[in-house]
Amino acid sequence: MASSARFTITYRIAAGSEDEAVQFAEKIGTEQSVEMPLEAVPESGKLSLPHIIDMVQWAENLWDATLTYPKSLFDSDTTQLMNVLFGNISMLHNIKLIDIDESVWKDNLHGPAFGISGIRKKLDVTKRALSCTALKPIGLSPAELAENAYQFTSGGIDIIKDDHGLANQSSAEFTSRVSAVVQAVRIGEQASGKKTLYFPNITTSPAYVLDRFHEAVEHGADGVLVSPQLTGIEMLHTLSNRGHLPLMAHPAFSGSFVIHPNHGFTPELYYGTIWRALGADSVIYPNTGGRFSFTRETCIAINHNLRTDLHSFYKTFPTPAGGIDLSSLEQEIAAYGNDTIYLIGGSLYKQKDGLQAATENFQTVLRSYE
Amino acid sequence: MASSARFTITYRIAAGSEDEAVQFAEKIGTEQSVEMPLEAVPESGKLSLPHIIDMVQWAENLWDATLTYPKSLFDSDTTQLMNVLFGNISMLHNIKLIDIDESVWKDNLHGPAFGISGIRKKLDVTKRALSCTALKPIGLSPAELAENAYQFTSGGIDIIKDDHGLANQSSAEFTSRVSAVVQAVRIGEQASGKKTLYFPNITTSPAYVLDRFHEAVEHGADGVLVSPQLTGIEMLHTLSNRGHLPLMAHPAFSGSFVIHPNHGFTPELYYGTIWRALGADSVIYPNTGGRFSFTRETCIAINHNLRTDLHSFYKTFPTPAGGIDLSSLEQEIAAYGNDTIYLIGGSLYKQKDGLQAATENFQTVLRSYE
Repeated sequence: MASSARFTITYRIAAGSEDEAVQFAEKIGTEQSVEMPLEAVPESGKLSLPHIIDMVQWAENLWDATLTYPKSLFDSDTTQLMNVLFGNISMLHNIKLIDIDESVWKDNLHGPAFGISGIRKKLDVTKRALSCTALKPIGLSPAELAENAYQFTSGGIDIIKDDHGLANQSSAEFTSRVSAVVQAVRIGEQASGKKTLYFPNITTSPAYVLDRFHEAVEHGADGVLVSPQLTGIEMLHTLSNRGHLPLMAHPAFSGSFVIHPNHGFTPELYYGTIWRALGADSVIYPNTGGRFSFTRETCIAINHNLRTDLHSFYKTFPTPAGGIDLSSLEQEIAAYGNDTIYLIGGSLYKQKDGLQAATENFQTVLRSYE
Repeated sequence: MASSARFTITYRIAAGSEDEAVQFAEKIGTEQSVEMPLEAVPESGKLSLPHIIDMVQWAENLWDATLTYPKSLFDSDTTQLMNVLFGNISMLHNIKLIDIDESVWKDNLHGPAFGISGIRKKLDVTKRALSCTALKPIGLSPAELAENAYQFTSGGIDIIKDDHGLANQSSAEFTSRVSAVVQAVRIGEQASGKKTLYFPNITTSPAYVLDRFHEAVEHGADGVLVSPQLTGIEMLHTLSNRGHLPLMAHPAFSGSFVIHPNHGFTPELYYGTIWRALGADSVIYPNTGGRFSFTRETCIAINHNLRTDLHSFYKTFPTPAGGIDLSSLEQEIAAYGNDTIYLIGGSLYKQKDGLQAATENFQTVLRSYE
């Protein structure tokens, strides 16, 4: 019954000695598979056991342990794959996932349904970087948000997303908001003479995200924003399977998995590989120099994983956010290149000449690198 | 439009001085509400702003900041409430949620649908503590798992749950497994002369958890196991709203939110208050002395929040797991009392006389404290 196919996970383990690291790696393997004393595992459970196949010292007190796990631990269930990756060991210090062999994504996942090329095609922009901004703050009415959307669109913005906190508040209920903003964007496009894409936020109760997704489709949205760690991370996969609209993934509620030096996932594995494999067409992450603490090297590593060859998966648009304003945009483009969506939210709202003029300046910079 | 009702969150902030703590608290408030420069917030967005109402030094370099937020930031959307609690700030160090005022749970949530009293009623056990074990490991067939379930049931176990990694693997697909185990439990009850409850694991793609829940109901399961951090945390609320079966919540993928000293939530706020408010009837957490690192004090604090008065919510069964075997059970009961489900998994499988005899010993200890 069980397939004999296996895949590997590499953990960076903090330990006082190699012996200690080996013991810890064995404990991890048991925890993430049979979760019972080895002497009590019956014959038919032994197929589920992982094995350590490599152990390399990386730095003082840090070892990289590679374990091979049977794919029969999760078969076709991606949520259970996430559980095998980090379920119980999320409760442990001194362990960080740094690599997962690519074969694991191939069996059940297909990556983004649109990717960089698909989003470029929707915008008819072949080479330059893309601009993105956010509708905010919570508290504005659909008419006020739509007016902002009109300003951004007439200034020529490429993508407008909802602020990730816009849900179904009485100040701007989902349906009225999406309907008003889509209409404003379509009118603004006539002023700008170019396409603008609107991505409303569909993050809500996980059992009802698909309903909201289909509402967004019906109302003529061009993509959707979703926070996978609030809806259940696998939601990306379910949504991308529908193939209707590109998915922009937001990191809300996910920081705890990536910001600790000896815990969780590396940001490039989590945002770069896993979110792409699950189907994100664009991945928002906290840019260096912003309100959060990623280094430039980490951001570049995330971009690399989003855009590198991975099976036949489309490439995903890195979408650095925070720490970018019009004066620093050129240096960001120098660092990240054109296959990037630059998300400027708050600082556009601060520009004295209004949203339309601020957006025109934004586009001018991007076009100069075309 | 927007309601003027507010609620408070208290954060423990690590900072070098009170000034620094105040600045950090202000940054948190902006991040979790308008998420834009204050000077750019329009009039209708100002209602969304939080205010610092208290700042108390807790210890050296630690301050407790209480902020009051408008409930209009989330209205009736519990997922958006989670985003307000910890969305973007999940990407920050030096901040831990330690308290949330109770009023926030009252508007949209109702706590467990069954709770301690409802689960006791199903078992017809009024006073003593309850026993629980897990079907494992992954790799066993439905028939093998059902045979184990029969042994546990004939020994008189109160609750059998699936191992949290049992999903829909080809070795034991969900439907065949639930059907075989329910049947085995019903036969075992005739041998024991008492009721046993079976909780299959319904954790899967968030969009399909409700389908699996209804399948569990149809197949005669007595409750379900779910890992909220894999399905989207709000799933507990959606499931408890159905009111069909008690929910046992598993901490897989949630450790990153609670194990860091200066990051996340306190375990008692997260597992004790939030999971109860969302609707968990039983909350599994890693017991002290087990494979993870909670202290006895933390476990007692979780138990307290699960069982204390909170609006008219039912009390939730604390379900400590790990670090308990038959020899230590008496000392655990002395620490946690009878309104507790003691979950012994792996160590029951190690008993030489077989699962039925091991379960009988388990029940004997619990009955001695009746």
